[in-house]
Amino acid sequence: MAEGVTVTAEQLAVLAEAIFTAKGMAREHARTVAEVLVWADLRGAPSHGVQRIPRYIEIIEADEMNLRPQMTIAKELRGAVLIDADRAPGQVSMSFAAAEAARKAKESGIGLALVRRTTHTAALGFYTRLAALQGMAALAGSASWPNMIYHGARDAGVATNPLSIAVPRGRGESMILDMATGVVALGKIVHAARSGKAIPEGWALDKDGQPTTDPKSAAFPLPLGGPKGSGLALMIECIASLITQNPLIAETLEGTAEGKKHRQNAFLIAIDIAAFGALDLFASSLERTIADLKALPRQDGIAEILMPGERGEREAVRRRRDGMAIPAATWAEIGRVAARFGVAMP
Amino acid sequence: MAEGVTVTAEQLAVLAEAIFTAKGMAREHARTVAEVLVWADLRGAPSHGVQRIPRYIEIIEADEMNLRPQMTIAKELRGAVLIDADRAPGQVSMSFAAAEAARKAKESGIGLALVRRTTHTAALGFYTRLAALQGMAALAGSASWPNMIYHGARDAGVATNPLSIAVPRGRGESMILDMATGVVALGKIVHAARSGKAIPEGWALDKDGQPTTDPKSAAFPLPLGGPKGSGLALMIECIASLITQNPLIAETLEGTAEGKKHRQNAFLIAIDIAAFGALDLFASSLERTIADLKALPRQDGIAEILMPGERGEREAVRRRRDGMAIPAATWAEIGRVAARFGVAMP
Repeated sequence: MAEGVTVTAEQLAVLAEAIFTAKGMAREHARTVAEVLVWADLRGAPSHGVQRIPRYIEIIEADEMNLRPQMTIAKELRGAVLIDADRAPGQVSMSFAAAEAARKAKESGIGLALVRRTTHTAALGFYTRLAALQGMAALAGSASWPNMIYHGARDAGVATNPLSIAVPRGRGESMILDMATGVVALGKIVHAARSGKAIPEGWALDKDGQPTTDPKSAAFPLPLGGPKGSGLALMIECIASLITQNPLIAETLEGTAEGKKHRQNAFLIAIDIAAFGALDLFASSLERTIADLKALPRQDGIAEILMPGERGEREAVRRRRDGMAIPAATWAEIGRVAARFGVAMP
Repeated sequence: MAEGVTVTAEQLAVLAEAIFTAKGMAREHARTVAEVLVWADLRGAPSHGVQRIPRYIEIIEADEMNLRPQMTIAKELRGAVLIDADRAPGQVSMSFAAAEAARKAKESGIGLALVRRTTHTAALGFYTRLAALQGMAALAGSASWPNMIYHGARDAGVATNPLSIAVPRGRGESMILDMATGVVALGKIVHAARSGKAIPEGWALDKDGQPTTDPKSAAFPLPLGGPKGSGLALMIECIASLITQNPLIAETLEGTAEGKKHRQNAFLIAIDIAAFGALDLFASSLERTIADLKALPRQDGIAEILMPGERGEREAVRRRRDGMAIPAATWAEIGRVAARFGVAMP
């Protein structure tokens, strides 16, 4: 077991659903949470996958994630809804937000779902993809408490608030950009620490706010492109948290009781492509653009020019077929949680 | 004159308006173009300022920018408009787009203006600011023909398509993020070339697609954060150009006649903050967040933590008071254009 296990996506999803259901979550919510976590594992983004299960149990037990949320539409306008998620799992509130934004877009050309008081939104691309599969161009951002450097500061000021944009490609496919506003995903720093490799300069500062290339002393990731990344993160906070009147940065930096709790806010915008012209024409123009980009001469050492999300899609095909390797440490941690709730491991 | 001249914002605006009017542009359009160009000069972004005048005259004479555009709303939905700009100056079509998006947002909570067939949109932050001054959170992107490396390629594949987000700060102020999707603004490479300084690795490739630190041989800027920047640029093309069915990347990469013409498309989304909660509360939460960020401990050598757009605002106050230095070469170029149309230089 020291070298980990290989499991199928189905086995992982059944396991995750069983753990959350045993903990007391409604089965349909547990299924949604499991589906989104496994989707990230399939695409090669384990930082947003089942390794989060123990942390989710923690935030449930701290009463920060609500097992039986009463989500409400706190405000409804012609083109927009404000969803109060009542601390629902992010996967549940964000899937609802994607459906609501698409519903509004079908009526108005564009639709907005603002989501306040949710929890870890996980892989944002899952929800923009949900809207894209309904013929939407979708744009989402989610806001979390400070864990990243604001440009010029030497302590965390903003979060690595991700931004995702997805568009439909036809035939049930989509093109998904899903990017953190940090120069690098936190997961890459953790991975470097585990494999004993140095990280490049410019990735992170240590706890004293000094640049470091030692992943073990890296405390805060730096923002993508300096002021650009931290500016984007701040603007996502403005839209997701300040319009919804649930500020995260201010509460945490001021050290209030509220600011010590796990909380997230988010927004998802859907644009109904077919309201402006034929969806087929959009899809064919997109395929043409993709083919033109893929035919560009490549830099040395580059085997293929990839579209946003394409690497993850291919990884998902391979992993769905061959199963996924879960590291021993992760598997043992999940195993301890499963044992607590009497859930058998696959 | 070799060291340039110092002029006031008023003088520059009068000059720009006079040149475009003399060329045959409607006076109100010429005034808008002049205002937006000088706004960029005031904020210390000369690459989007009056130095563009000679290029604008070129694209007018190539019949790519229309002196007498008949802008139309090609499609109107409850929350959105599709504006056909008829090759209007970008300043004119984008100012209209900001007004239309805000109008729609007031009715629906969110409003979208898609703009097809416009020309150089110049400083995108000008238009998100227009919407912000109406109480909107505004988000805009504009698409141009390929001038930047797509991640992995060694020839231009996407443009440095900028993204801007602005929010109101109350008292007629706003906070404006306005960022290109390239690792650095083209203007900085040009500036390095003029001052004979090397550029850092990772900024640009030369015409053969090889990395270079010589600004004079830099042909293509690299995307911000590799796949993130080029992915964002591609997504802006999808929303601005493919939904509006006026593809730029494909036409240019395929070398069609259309693809050789100067053309741009854009989008502007406005969210009516007051529709979701009191605007005053948004503004006070924002001020609180800004104060908290500014109070963070600073990195060595950082005198102050700045908000998005803050450096530009301060520069504008200073330049409005003291005038602006225009480099001799730029002034001489504008002078030649002015002379052609019988316009006196200040």
